[in-house]
Amino acid sequence: MSLAKLQLKKNEEKRIKSGHLWVYSNEVDTNATPLKSFSVGQQVLIESAQGKPLGVGYINPNNLLCARLVNRDYKRGLDKSLFVHRFKIAQSLRERVFDKPFYRLVYGESDGLPGLIVDRFANHLVVQITTAGMEALKTDIIEALIKVCKPESILLRNDSNARKAESLSNVIEQAHGVTPDSLQIEENDTQFVIHPHTGQKTGWFYDHRVSRQQIAKYAKGQRVLDVFSYIGAFGIQMAKHGASELWSIDISAKALDELDQNAALNGIQDITTCVEGDAYTAMTELKQQGEKFDVVIVDPPAFIKKKKDHKAGLNAYRKVNEAAIRLLNRDGILLSASCSMHLKSNELQGCIRGAGRHLDKTVQIIEQCHQGQDHPIHPAIDETRYIKGFISRVLSA
Amino acid sequence: MSLAKLQLKKNEEKRIKSGHLWVYSNEVDTNATPLKSFSVGQQVLIESAQGKPLGVGYINPNNLLCARLVNRDYKRGLDKSLFVHRFKIAQSLRERVFDKPFYRLVYGESDGLPGLIVDRFANHLVVQITTAGMEALKTDIIEALIKVCKPESILLRNDSNARKAESLSNVIEQAHGVTPDSLQIEENDTQFVIHPHTGQKTGWFYDHRVSRQQIAKYAKGQRVLDVFSYIGAFGIQMAKHGASELWSIDISAKALDELDQNAALNGIQDITTCVEGDAYTAMTELKQQGEKFDVVIVDPPAFIKKKKDHKAGLNAYRKVNEAAIRLLNRDGILLSASCSMHLKSNELQGCIRGAGRHLDKTVQIIEQCHQGQDHPIHPAIDETRYIKGFISRVLSA
Repeated sequence: MSLAKLQLKKNEEKRIKSGHLWVYSNEVDTNATPLKSFSVGQQVLIESAQGKPLGVGYINPNNLLCARLVNRDYKRGLDKSLFVHRFKIAQSLRERVFDKPFYRLVYGESDGLPGLIVDRFANHLVVQITTAGMEALKTDIIEALIKVCKPESILLRNDSNARKAESLSNVIEQAHGVTPDSLQIEENDTQFVIHPHTGQKTGWFYDHRVSRQQIAKYAKGQRVLDVFSYIGAFGIQMAKHGASELWSIDISAKALDELDQNAALNGIQDITTCVEGDAYTAMTELKQQGEKFDVVIVDPPAFIKKKKDHKAGLNAYRKVNEAAIRLLNRDGILLSASCSMHLKSNELQGCIRGAGRHLDKTVQIIEQCHQGQDHPIHPAIDETRYIKGFISRVLSA
Repeated sequence: MSLAKLQLKKNEEKRIKSGHLWVYSNEVDTNATPLKSFSVGQQVLIESAQGKPLGVGYINPNNLLCARLVNRDYKRGLDKSLFVHRFKIAQSLRERVFDKPFYRLVYGESDGLPGLIVDRFANHLVVQITTAGMEALKTDIIEALIKVCKPESILLRNDSNARKAESLSNVIEQAHGVTPDSLQIEENDTQFVIHPHTGQKTGWFYDHRVSRQQIAKYAKGQRVLDVFSYIGAFGIQMAKHGASELWSIDISAKALDELDQNAALNGIQDITTCVEGDAYTAMTELKQQGEKFDVVIVDPPAFIKKKKDHKAGLNAYRKVNEAAIRLLNRDGILLSASCSMHLKSNELQGCIRGAGRHLDKTVQIIEQCHQGQDHPIHPAIDETRYIKGFISRVLSA
């Protein structure tokens, strides 16, 4: 294998050597190896200023984040056989932890495959490719997935926002077999129908699997409100675990239609009420109507998509948490989560603390929530650790 | 109720109003309310500079941390009836979460009772009082515990290091009934014999209950090493969940004797091996002897007891984690935890990352560990959030 070299400036190999996988363009010795000499998505041999090989990466010369390491063994690039190897390693973790084939099979950097996401819904795989380097290897990816998983279908949901940064166009593509419009899946012993072609992301959010187990302990006999419910992942699991009533708020009528179908699938339609609308407005109206709940779940979409949105986002988290606490019965339980990479865990804790104090309540945090085992954290890459949440008990002061 | 006033300086009420419970001596307006005018442990009415009452606290005029808020209702001090109320609130949480009467019943500030710890072992309570303000209320505490819990015995294990800072002497005292030398307890469906009079702290560490559930998923058929085992809380639960072998390292021969008894109690003595010695030395010797394990658990005593020990402690964490990783079989599981209040979660993560890289291993963090629900976190007091841990999968690079 003969790869073009990407040489780093002096001392710029430190982050890579400490475990990280990313190279920024200002760390490259562009005199020795001009970025414009590389093509988009090309694989390169990344070297220190002293010419010591650090590994193989793929490059996007137009990006600030210009290269991602894919192999510390610098003698071997990313190809079909390495994909097969990495997929098997990824699968062995999931098979060890989960007894059914419903999980995120590949979680990007954390599984040694930057720019690649694969969700497994039994015999159907849904793939997201988010970088030009991975896009260049699309055929190898599909062939390796077929070899390792023998799936009935593979759907490429290449319509994520992340592709813009890599100048990739958005396209949803059937790469293998035929993916049905809807699929029945299972999470924590609860059934759901999802829509892989048209749903958000891959059609399902496996990342809160463990949080949903955690909060289910508090369901029995309780009146539950699921804010930002989407198609009911949290709420329907609460109902299956004995909630006396489930109320769900979402801004999307389509999501609530699908939630109703999922409620019927699990035989809990009689206790289910859907409220279509903006979360804050809907919560304020429920308050005005005198509704109260024993458990409120607040898992919003990312309010802080970019760093510059931080302050406004923080206010938004505080606002919805305060509205949620207002709706709680005495000694109620709040699950407050965030998937914003730019929101730190202690900032979310601060929102809950502040909302509680503002309403003269005493808050005890009794559990912390994180992404499940199929979303491993890369210990050198903070961005891979994005889910945070708290289960709190809210008492009068 | 007429209480002496403790007046804060201008703007120093902010932290209290944001939820915190502590007042430092440099925040007190000592012209208006000289500290030397108060007696040790006295209850006071804490006021802002403007004379606005903030609540009732107790004071230790000789300490930097000179007062702790016990009630935001400034009309009511801490007495037997308020203890009864707070104990009932604390107990209702534990009864909701745990199906057996084995738990930390009171966790200091987080349960609204700064300076008080109560562990419940069925009909026996073990109490730790760590502040002069609580010490002054000892009789009320005992009477209220008898009223709420109707225990067979109450033992005061007032021999913690924290008492020194409050100039309290160390004494172990039978406050009610007779506490046996040993008690049989249950955690996560595993039985243990503990020694409330002579064991560490109250005789048992309930704080890792959930971590022990988490790691038990990875036990089946695995060869497990429990480093810093103490009396076997982690290891014996692993054996009960199907570990093929359990090796335990502890520096205390007495702890290992008790571990052997607990192994016998659970019928797993045939697969149990104890190694007495310093953890790092013992791990190095096991490595030299060619021993390998599928799961290694590293939960050391606090290596960072004071802020000034931070750097040395960080090195110690790194060193034991590296020694642990050296002992792992291919695709092994590491549970690495810390109870050091002064070690941040991301610092422990850094130790694991660094140890992995140094040994040319790829580490995936698959679960995060925290103190259980009977150690709730006070959202304004970082010191109440002290347990952190990571379950990692360790792969060859």
